[in-house]
Amino acid sequence: MSRDRLCRWAGWGRDAEAMSLAEHPKLVAHLRSCLGDLPDAGVEAAPISSLEVAPGKLGEEAVAEFVAAVGDEGLRTDAEDRIRHSFGKSYRDLVRARSGAVDRITDAVIYPTDAESVARVLDIAGRHGVAVIPFGGGTSVVGGVEPRVGEPDRKDACGATITLDTRWMNGIELDEDSQLAEVGAGVMGPDLEEALGAHGYTLGHFPQSFEFSTMGGWVAARGAGQQSTRYGKIEEMVQSVRLVSPAGEIVTRNVPATAAGPGIVQQFVGSEGTLGVITSATVRIRPKAESMRMEAFLFGDFEYGCHAMRRLEQAGLPLSIVRLSDAEETRWLSQAAESSPSLVGRIGRAVVERMIRRRGYDRERLCLALVSMEGDRAAVAAGMRRGRRIIASCGGIALGMSPGKNWFRDRFRHPYLRDELIARGVMVDTLETATTWSNLPVLYAGVRDALSESMEEAGREGVVLCHLSHIYPTGSSLYYTFMAKQVPGEELRQWQRIKDAATAAIVAGGGTLSHHHGIGYEHAPLAAENGPLAVKALAAAKRELDPTGIMNPGKLFSPGTERDTEP
Amino acid sequence: MSRDRLCRWAGWGRDAEAMSLAEHPKLVAHLRSCLGDLPDAGVEAAPISSLEVAPGKLGEEAVAEFVAAVGDEGLRTDAEDRIRHSFGKSYRDLVRARSGAVDRITDAVIYPTDAESVARVLDIAGRHGVAVIPFGGGTSVVGGVEPRVGEPDRKDACGATITLDTRWMNGIELDEDSQLAEVGAGVMGPDLEEALGAHGYTLGHFPQSFEFSTMGGWVAARGAGQQSTRYGKIEEMVQSVRLVSPAGEIVTRNVPATAAGPGIVQQFVGSEGTLGVITSATVRIRPKAESMRMEAFLFGDFEYGCHAMRRLEQAGLPLSIVRLSDAEETRWLSQAAESSPSLVGRIGRAVVERMIRRRGYDRERLCLALVSMEGDRAAVAAGMRRGRRIIASCGGIALGMSPGKNWFRDRFRHPYLRDELIARGVMVDTLETATTWSNLPVLYAGVRDALSESMEEAGREGVVLCHLSHIYPTGSSLYYTFMAKQVPGEELRQWQRIKDAATAAIVAGGGTLSHHHGIGYEHAPLAAENGPLAVKALAAAKRELDPTGIMNPGKLFSPGTERDTEP
Repeated sequence: MSRDRLCRWAGWGRDAEAMSLAEHPKLVAHLRSCLGDLPDAGVEAAPISSLEVAPGKLGEEAVAEFVAAVGDEGLRTDAEDRIRHSFGKSYRDLVRARSGAVDRITDAVIYPTDAESVARVLDIAGRHGVAVIPFGGGTSVVGGVEPRVGEPDRKDACGATITLDTRWMNGIELDEDSQLAEVGAGVMGPDLEEALGAHGYTLGHFPQSFEFSTMGGWVAARGAGQQSTRYGKIEEMVQSVRLVSPAGEIVTRNVPATAAGPGIVQQFVGSEGTLGVITSATVRIRPKAESMRMEAFLFGDFEYGCHAMRRLEQAGLPLSIVRLSDAEETRWLSQAAESSPSLVGRIGRAVVERMIRRRGYDRERLCLALVSMEGDRAAVAAGMRRGRRIIASCGGIALGMSPGKNWFRDRFRHPYLRDELIARGVMVDTLETATTWSNLPVLYAGVRDALSESMEEAGREGVVLCHLSHIYPTGSSLYYTFMAKQVPGEELRQWQRIKDAATAAIVAGGGTLSHHHGIGYEHAPLAAENGPLAVKALAAAKRELDPTGIMNPGKLFSPGTERDTEP
Repeated sequence: MSRDRLCRWAGWGRDAEAMSLAEHPKLVAHLRSCLGDLPDAGVEAAPISSLEVAPGKLGEEAVAEFVAAVGDEGLRTDAEDRIRHSFGKSYRDLVRARSGAVDRITDAVIYPTDAESVARVLDIAGRHGVAVIPFGGGTSVVGGVEPRVGEPDRKDACGATITLDTRWMNGIELDEDSQLAEVGAGVMGPDLEEALGAHGYTLGHFPQSFEFSTMGGWVAARGAGQQSTRYGKIEEMVQSVRLVSPAGEIVTRNVPATAAGPGIVQQFVGSEGTLGVITSATVRIRPKAESMRMEAFLFGDFEYGCHAMRRLEQAGLPLSIVRLSDAEETRWLSQAAESSPSLVGRIGRAVVERMIRRRGYDRERLCLALVSMEGDRAAVAAGMRRGRRIIASCGGIALGMSPGKNWFRDRFRHPYLRDELIARGVMVDTLETATTWSNLPVLYAGVRDALSESMEEAGREGVVLCHLSHIYPTGSSLYYTFMAKQVPGEELRQWQRIKDAATAAIVAGGGTLSHHHGIGYEHAPLAAENGPLAVKALAAAKRELDPTGIMNPGKLFSPGTERDTEP
């Protein structure tokens, strides 16, 4: 049961791959110019071995039954395993982890090997009133894996919590004729792509958490990979699921499409462990693309850039990754690039400078776009030719391939930077939403302004970066990064205040609460999305599948919302 | 309130467009050779004006309240309107209509004009215990609009039924930047395509019922159009919906994608009027394709044909319509073609004959495929070139464009033939399912054999035709037509026995109960699809949105199933 499939304690990824701010002096200088002074060195988190946790609350009888169900090897109650399984990777998680806040710790970690052992575990948990938190890679950024038992606003009376780690449910079965793979919930990104790649296939799901997240987690969170414009979000990849709920197992028909009533599969995608444990999913796989090409462009402002991205997508080009950074994020990226390979590429810099001058672009408003296409070689070449024409007609300046290459190389490494910033006393978090193209300008400005203003109101000047990505013919996602100096001793209150302001702006601006992170505990209340009646309808299914409310309590149907859903 | 938007009484479409069997002497001869003797002339249905129905069961108070809610013009209780709104277009409906079975007739037809008036109507219906059946074009082939109130196996105690005709909810609002249209539930196919076409767009949803069915019906039934391989099924087109339920209205966020919990939109698509009234849907529209080309091919047998269709789809070609008829259906089509323009085309016939001989194909096993592609001219031309190579490598013989042209011209007219056959004493019905490519051979044979054997057991030799259509990278739909001489006086029992055998074969063979017709009353039990627990979860949402069970009772969650869903 090796630990290295989990991220390191109180931070992202592996120690060996951590990114140091020392490599980015210009970025630090830029940050200081925006946020004020920062310490030269970060504060280390307390080592996990130094933390003391209260003994587990599972009774002896329950422990004996769990052991009988999953074997001695399948139940762990040592402090380190319990602590590691009680934190996700949100800003809130990291702040709490760094401060050694081990007040909400799971009482045992259980490692079932198949759907049958999951059913046994849920049966035991139900009889003993034990809450169950399904756990894939533990990379939730919305509080999805935090035990919430024992809080005064909880309605259930579960005495204890177990965390169900899916790592041993790791089978992969291919049906090549049908381009399908049945994938165990615990299979991680790299293992899946390796197995599929050996047969010439890919799932095409590459979230930033790819190296540390699982099939079960992707489905439960309704996630999106960076190449979603080609491969779709996970809900478009899932053809059928196997879900073990406290009330029994549901295996949906493995069929390409159906008119047999409402879409039950889509009710499980995004259920975040509240309805049961997704033990496997049958997903659509694709032959690996013959070719991929990414080019970078510079636009005079965000509006023109958005217009160009919309036209590319609506032209039906074989887009894969599309990212358009706003002016603030473009400045940030160019500061980061100054200290590593150049954003623009050394040779072309003079040409680009001349074009910026000639077009009279305001340097403060320049926006960087990365555009990649995938497919067979001819389609990519033809698509890129057509794409360049569209971009040029929107005033875009071609920057060549190096900015995209750099981004692609580091695409799973950006979260490491967050650890460094937090260590230096910076509040840094991300959030994302989506809307239609016609509403994009309103939502973009509304959320950006809400973040800026609320950071200031919370006592600190802040920086707000945004990019458009995951584009669709009908609209796009918007992804925000916001940073300000922490208010010492008030870190979580400061953050919550800003988060609440952003959520209010999303709701008022017609966006969705989340495009791919999920709701969990932090993005609540779900009722803000489609109103309390929609939550009631969803919660009714939960009552049927999880009548005693043991499945991941306090998430999705959050406390505040859950009160609304009472009959 | 013109009536011509509804199909003619006891038949399909309009009298003026009816197809006569007299035009198809070879087809009639073929049918006689398969089924035995048939009369030369059909029996007319009793005219609707000759039918007497019991007075409506709505109380005076309820009528007064409904009139206050929708105005005098919005409530109709005359016999003809009531009868017309009480039958769909399934074989069962047509047999009952022809026999003048007016025992289950709605008590009033209500024509609300907007979501607000629907809410008022549902409120009144709820207080008076009146069942409500939403009604679009009335083309359901699964019993979706038949009043089921008053049967002994019904659990609700509604005294009366109203049918809610959505025709006045017919607004269309375009958001061209976002390639979206908000379309009222009552908008019919031709009106929608005309409105979109004026701006250069199409929805691309062309079910066989296109001329007589509505947006609300498409969404409620989870339908598919003939060009679904390009445009997707309706559930892929719908971005958001507005649903008025007895418990209140839900307007889902109009966003391209979301991770805010389970997919609520997909819970309403396929809800068949059991959760509330879909008053509008915001759907993804597409620029009209520059070019469409359809070609026909002949395969040595069904297996090779399936293999070719799978390879075409998995090669990512711009397919639009794909139909591969099995040997029996190919014989049927060639008999029909003999009496109208030739299946093969006069000029090429000799060439085709020579190729059939040279390859040693068994004439009894030949299978016809129609393959169309859509897109810009260059993409269609390139796709067709590549497609022809794939088809040739699977032994396919090119037949040119005329068979496809004939099919396309008549594509909405085929149901007229059914009326002629029923009038001559033939039981004729269709059903459809879907499965993965790897499971296709098993399901294909299983359902075909079940239909043949059950027809024989029910006392008549039968004919079973099948085609593959609506293909996906992971699998395909299978569409069956089955015919036998009616057993006089036993028509419905004969049909039910065959239908039950087919359903059992679909379930045992791993297919879905329906790919695009829906469940309604006739395709039950829904529990056979994903098990009783899945139905419980769906039915729980119904209890929340429709606590007194007034919405389309007896459908989807059918009587037998509903007993299972009791707590």
